[in-house]
Amino acid sequence: MIKTIGYAAHEEGAELVPYHFERRDLRANDVAIEILYAGICHSDLHTIKGDWGSQPYPLIPGHEIIGKVIEVGADVKEFKVDDKVGVGCMVDSCQSCDQCESHEEQFCRDGMTPTYGAKDRVDSTITQGGYSKHIIVREEFVLKVSDKLDLSKAAPILCAGITTYTPLKKWGVKKGTRVGVIGLGGLGHMAVKLAAAMGAEVTVISRSTKKEEEAKAIGATGILASQDLDAMKKAANSFDFIIDTIPVKHDLNIYTPLLDIDGTLTIVGQIGPVEEPITAPLVFGRRRVAGSLIGGIKETQEVLDFCAEHNIHPVCEIINPQDVNKAWDTLLTDNPAHRFVMNMSKLEA
Amino acid sequence: MIKTIGYAAHEEGAELVPYHFERRDLRANDVAIEILYAGICHSDLHTIKGDWGSQPYPLIPGHEIIGKVIEVGADVKEFKVDDKVGVGCMVDSCQSCDQCESHEEQFCRDGMTPTYGAKDRVDSTITQGGYSKHIIVREEFVLKVSDKLDLSKAAPILCAGITTYTPLKKWGVKKGTRVGVIGLGGLGHMAVKLAAAMGAEVTVISRSTKKEEEAKAIGATGILASQDLDAMKKAANSFDFIIDTIPVKHDLNIYTPLLDIDGTLTIVGQIGPVEEPITAPLVFGRRRVAGSLIGGIKETQEVLDFCAEHNIHPVCEIINPQDVNKAWDTLLTDNPAHRFVMNMSKLEA
Repeated sequence: MIKTIGYAAHEEGAELVPYHFERRDLRANDVAIEILYAGICHSDLHTIKGDWGSQPYPLIPGHEIIGKVIEVGADVKEFKVDDKVGVGCMVDSCQSCDQCESHEEQFCRDGMTPTYGAKDRVDSTITQGGYSKHIIVREEFVLKVSDKLDLSKAAPILCAGITTYTPLKKWGVKKGTRVGVIGLGGLGHMAVKLAAAMGAEVTVISRSTKKEEEAKAIGATGILASQDLDAMKKAANSFDFIIDTIPVKHDLNIYTPLLDIDGTLTIVGQIGPVEEPITAPLVFGRRRVAGSLIGGIKETQEVLDFCAEHNIHPVCEIINPQDVNKAWDTLLTDNPAHRFVMNMSKLEA
Repeated sequence: MIKTIGYAAHEEGAELVPYHFERRDLRANDVAIEILYAGICHSDLHTIKGDWGSQPYPLIPGHEIIGKVIEVGADVKEFKVDDKVGVGCMVDSCQSCDQCESHEEQFCRDGMTPTYGAKDRVDSTITQGGYSKHIIVREEFVLKVSDKLDLSKAAPILCAGITTYTPLKKWGVKKGTRVGVIGLGGLGHMAVKLAAAMGAEVTVISRSTKKEEEAKAIGATGILASQDLDAMKKAANSFDFIIDTIPVKHDLNIYTPLLDIDGTLTIVGQIGPVEEPITAPLVFGRRRVAGSLIGGIKETQEVLDFCAEHNIHPVCEIINPQDVNKAWDTLLTDNPAHRFVMNMSKLEA
C-alpha cells in the first residue's frame, strides 16, 4: 500500500479537507502515478453536492490528472518510471463488450469505472480521484502526455478537452463549419479552442457580450448575446453545429432555431431536466438535439496529441490545493472562462 | 377557370361542408388533375382546429392526392392527359435556393407553398387542397404514379409515406436495423411497412398490446406496450432507431432509454411542446432526438416507386366524401391503424 493524502469530502455537500488514506498495492497491469496537477471540473461539485445521486464517503473527487510514473507493475508494457502521463474520467471497464472493443469505454455495457466514487472491479474498494498526491491506475486507462504540452496546463484536456473534442469529431466539424459554443466556462473555452483549430468558424453564445474579449482571444470570431432577442432572431439558421455546455436546467428553445437545416445541438453540460422543448424547430429544420459523454481512451489520447500538435492549452488558473474550497465557491457563483488547476506538488503529505 | 367543388371549413373548427369554387386557368407549366382519391391526414384536423395557427377561410384541406391528368399547360414536358399522378404536401417553392437545388423543397429558404391554406406564389390566391374534385399544380410538384400501385390505396403515400420514408432513409435504416415505431396510426403503420421492406426488424411501441395482430400483419415482429414498465425496462438499449408518430404532447423520457448507444429518435407527429426531457439518456448513450418534415419531391417520387416495387399499400378504409366529418371524429377519439381515403369520384359537382 502507498500511504498518501488527498482532499476529501466526508459527507454530501461538505467542504473538502485533507485526508490521509492508502492506495492499493500495484497489480501486474498497474501504473503508480505521482500526481503533479489536478484540474477542477464542475462535475466534481455536482457529485459532492449530491446532484447526481448519493455517493460513498469520504470521497476524493478529481478526474483531470497529470502526473509522472513512479512505479509500474510486472506486465506493464507501455509505461516506465518518469513518463509523463494523464488520467481522465475512467479508470477501468470490462474491456470485452462491443463498446470497449470499439474504443468507446465510456459506454461499456458493464458500466465503466469512474475515477472516483465507484467500486473497483477487482477488490470492490471505492475509487478515489485526483485531488490527491498519488493514484494507481491500470495501464489501459493511462494516457501519454507529449513533451510539447505544458504539464501545468494540460490536466483539463482529460475531461473538458475530451468532452468537447468527441462531439466536434462525431458531428464532422471541419474547416468552415459554423460552430456555436453555448457557455464560456471550462468546457466552452476548450470547445472554442478545439473547434477553431479544426478550422471552424466559432461563435460563443453567452447571456451577454461581457466575455467578448476572452472569446476572441481564444479563437472565436465573436459573441452572440442570448439576451439580445434581435441578434438571436437574426442569427436563426446560422449554425451547423452547437455545443451546449450549460451545467444547469435551461431552455433549449432559445437555441434550436439558431441551427441551420440538419444541424445538431449537443448537450455536454447538463445531466438532468431541461425546459419543455418545442418540437417545431426540430421538425421544420430536421434539426437534432443530442448528448455526448466524454470520449473513449483512444480518442482521449487523440485529443491530448491534437492539443500538443496545435499548441492548445486550456486557460488555467494554477492554485494551491488548500484553496480548493474557495475555487469551488467561485465556480458556483461565477462561470469563469478558464479552469482552476491545483499544483499538487504543494500538497504536503 | 375550372368550376369545381370541394369540402371546406368556413371557420376554425367548423364542420366541412360542400363548397363550390374555381381553380385557376392553366399556366404554361401547370397540370390540371381530376382527383380520384384523397387521403385524410391527422394534420388536416390540426390545421382546421387551429392547432397550428390561424388559417384563411373558407379552406379545403387535403394533401394526399391521387388523380388523372385532364389537361396540361403549353410547356409541360413530363405529363400528358390520362397519366395517373399524385400531389403531396407542397405545390410550389422558390426552385433556386440551396435546399430546392438539393431536392429538399420542404425546407425552401423562401418557404415552400403548402397544398392548402397558403398564398400562391404567382397570384397570391389561397391554395386549396385535395378534398375536392380538381386541382391545378405546377409540373415540378406533380408525381408519377406507377401502374403497379392500386390507385385507391396510394394517396396516403404522398404524406404518411414520405413522412416516414425520409427519416428511415436519412438515418440509414437497412437490413437488420432495430426499428421502433411509436404509435400505430396513419404514419406509424406506413413506417412499419416501409421499414420492414427495407429489411429492418420492426417493433411497434404502443400503450398496450391491443394492436398486436394488426402490427404483425403489416410486418412488425411484435409490439412493446409502453404501459408495461417491466417490458419497457427490459427493452432498454434495444433500438437503433425510433420513429415517434404521436401527434400530441407526450413524454419522450419513456422512450429515449429504449435507444441503443448512438441511436436516434425522430419526431414526425407532434409540432408543439413535449414534456420536460431528462438529458441523462442523451448524454449517457450519445442518443439523439431529431425531427423530420415530409421529404423533397425527388424522394416523394422515390417512395412512390419503392411502394410500387415492393407492393406496399397503406391500409385504407375507402369512404365517400360526405362521410368526411364522421371520419374526422373517429381520428379524434380513436387512432385507427389505417388511413381514411375518400373516393372523390363520388363527389357530385
